[in-house]
Amino acid sequence: MTNVSIIGVGQTKVKEHWDTSLRHLAWYAIEAALDDAHTTDIDAVFVGNMLGGELSKQNHLGALVADFAGLRGVEAIRIEAADASGGAAFRQAVLAVESGLVQTALVVGVEKMTEEMGAPATAALSTALDADYETIHGLTLAGMGALLMRRYMHEYGVDVSDFAGFSVNAHANGALNPLAMYRNRLKPERFAAAPQVAEPVSLFDMAPGGDGAAAVIVTRHERALDMVPQPVRVAGSALATDTLALHDRKDVLWLAAAERSAKQAMIQAGISPEDVDLFELHDSFTVMAALSLEACGFAARGEGWRLARDGEIGRNGRIPVSTFGGLKARGNPAGATGVYQIVEVALQLRGQAGDCQVPDARIGMAQNLGGSGATAVTHILRVD
Amino acid sequence: MTNVSIIGVGQTKVKEHWDTSLRHLAWYAIEAALDDAHTTDIDAVFVGNMLGGELSKQNHLGALVADFAGLRGVEAIRIEAADASGGAAFRQAVLAVESGLVQTALVVGVEKMTEEMGAPATAALSTALDADYETIHGLTLAGMGALLMRRYMHEYGVDVSDFAGFSVNAHANGALNPLAMYRNRLKPERFAAAPQVAEPVSLFDMAPGGDGAAAVIVTRHERALDMVPQPVRVAGSALATDTLALHDRKDVLWLAAAERSAKQAMIQAGISPEDVDLFELHDSFTVMAALSLEACGFAARGEGWRLARDGEIGRNGRIPVSTFGGLKARGNPAGATGVYQIVEVALQLRGQAGDCQVPDARIGMAQNLGGSGATAVTHILRVD
Repeated sequence: MTNVSIIGVGQTKVKEHWDTSLRHLAWYAIEAALDDAHTTDIDAVFVGNMLGGELSKQNHLGALVADFAGLRGVEAIRIEAADASGGAAFRQAVLAVESGLVQTALVVGVEKMTEEMGAPATAALSTALDADYETIHGLTLAGMGALLMRRYMHEYGVDVSDFAGFSVNAHANGALNPLAMYRNRLKPERFAAAPQVAEPVSLFDMAPGGDGAAAVIVTRHERALDMVPQPVRVAGSALATDTLALHDRKDVLWLAAAERSAKQAMIQAGISPEDVDLFELHDSFTVMAALSLEACGFAARGEGWRLARDGEIGRNGRIPVSTFGGLKARGNPAGATGVYQIVEVALQLRGQAGDCQVPDARIGMAQNLGGSGATAVTHILRVD
Repeated sequence: MTNVSIIGVGQTKVKEHWDTSLRHLAWYAIEAALDDAHTTDIDAVFVGNMLGGELSKQNHLGALVADFAGLRGVEAIRIEAADASGGAAFRQAVLAVESGLVQTALVVGVEKMTEEMGAPATAALSTALDADYETIHGLTLAGMGALLMRRYMHEYGVDVSDFAGFSVNAHANGALNPLAMYRNRLKPERFAAAPQVAEPVSLFDMAPGGDGAAAVIVTRHERALDMVPQPVRVAGSALATDTLALHDRKDVLWLAAAERSAKQAMIQAGISPEDVDLFELHDSFTVMAALSLEACGFAARGEGWRLARDGEIGRNGRIPVSTFGGLKARGNPAGATGVYQIVEVALQLRGQAGDCQVPDARIGMAQNLGGSGATAVTHILRVD
């Protein structure tokens, strides 16, 4: 258990924000979080962002975002760990508050991709992979997902259709989330007919990029109790890594960093997988959802896909996932995604998830992955 | 005073490392630091890097560098705050160790620019400025330096030649540092004849980009005492920010973030400017050196240049700066620079600075700036 609690959350809709700049997006999420926490007293800002330099020609987002949010002068930096940037930024805020050197920290994940969607965004996202040994040969994130999915199908004797349940569940939940990018329900027969992106990864196996920002404010727990009616405790926090390149791994079908960070976070929180009421996992690809469930102890090796097939990941199932739509339907604004996950778990535990609410949620887990799972950040949140 | 001490340092020569990849550069510095600390027991890696995504098509350097350094699996992220990335990464390591959640942290600053020197590097470095309001109009870092220098000359009635002392001192020290990029001594008449980069900034007002990596290992002080003969204590640590754009500041000739972070670090360390035995400042431009000295309390407003003219910044002067050559002569591998500064101060305090040694150095300060000074990270180190 850490001494850190969440006192405010905020988020924008994920969509094509053609008329909103990177700094404005960040500000909208920050404004909502400051309102939610009823404070403007922030000592440090941690910005999770992956692609500002590549797609908006803007690095140095710590100082920029802090200034634009009316926090000129405050400590502020940007954290980058590919699409795990948001989760990693939240982890830094936890460390900062836990150190005692920072009293209240604000985390904002922000990403802006729409204007550069297509080849520029695809190239920029590929910087998550190993540039010298993978990207140089033309590998993209979709290609990486295809390699993993193909291998998974081969090893475990499953078919493309066995992955459908992840996307169907994500869209069923996203349809209920007013901030989701895609609010359409998805039928299994539509999934089966989806155009291929990188065979066997189809359009509906893969989470869409988008623009969005999410923000969270944390402070020490005893202080949080005085500030808000429902502080959400950070019970566990861990970050682990693995090789960027798939070929460097002894076992490509095992997300070692996901396992390691989940175990560490669970030990810290003093819980087991069966104690988790909901799990915001990193469903960048349907196969990543399956592999995450296996690595984190929610399914046996090679059986993660069964949870989706058997309806165990629904809001009333054994382990609800992607409860606001996940990366697949809420949308995947790369460096912001990990902060969306934290916001969503916090809303669930506060009982403020609206139509997406998981009944009686007390312990929630969020896991944000970077690239092929080379970075894995796991957080366990709880309310008493 | 923090509870954090440095137990190992390492660095590569700054130069055009045509035959060395980004990950190799990082590894060489890490290897030296691990050797220096006599340990391989590292719990977290903080990578300071500004331009990996833009110039090497490689983000996600936390996981990549950790794996390549033989630390596969360990917690690892990248920190970016423009050319203050290195100092900001060191600050995160201090927070992590101070939190108690991380026992031993390794910081590595690494940058690789040579293959893309010229327009690509200039454009990439400009991401430190405000993309929507400065860079879009063609402003580069050199142009920003020129605006500041011109204004400084106008306000304080000084001439271009009054800045020469900063570069002459930097080159005099760099000539004694085997790892410096430029080891030539610089004569004032050569300074005066230098070609213009962005008038009035000449080639010798401006620090050169280069490739390099530097690494530092920190742990809790009581543990450090058991591990190495000369732990260097982190007495003060602070990071502050300002607007990215110069036009947003009430006073462009005052580095508010530099002042704020220096004051906070000095209060934490319980010292005043007169207690500082040496100051590794951010001499990206001669005018930035002058402004830093003023903001940090070593000179009155408008008088920083006098310290250089009067020889007070030499190794035997009142406040020695750029003791290993500074950004100007050691070289400025953007995101690595802040870690070089920490390494250099630590070597000075350990009495291991060789020909660059400042006599009887007990308290040293390092200040790393991002862009126009929008990020300022100040660390005060000391030995008893």
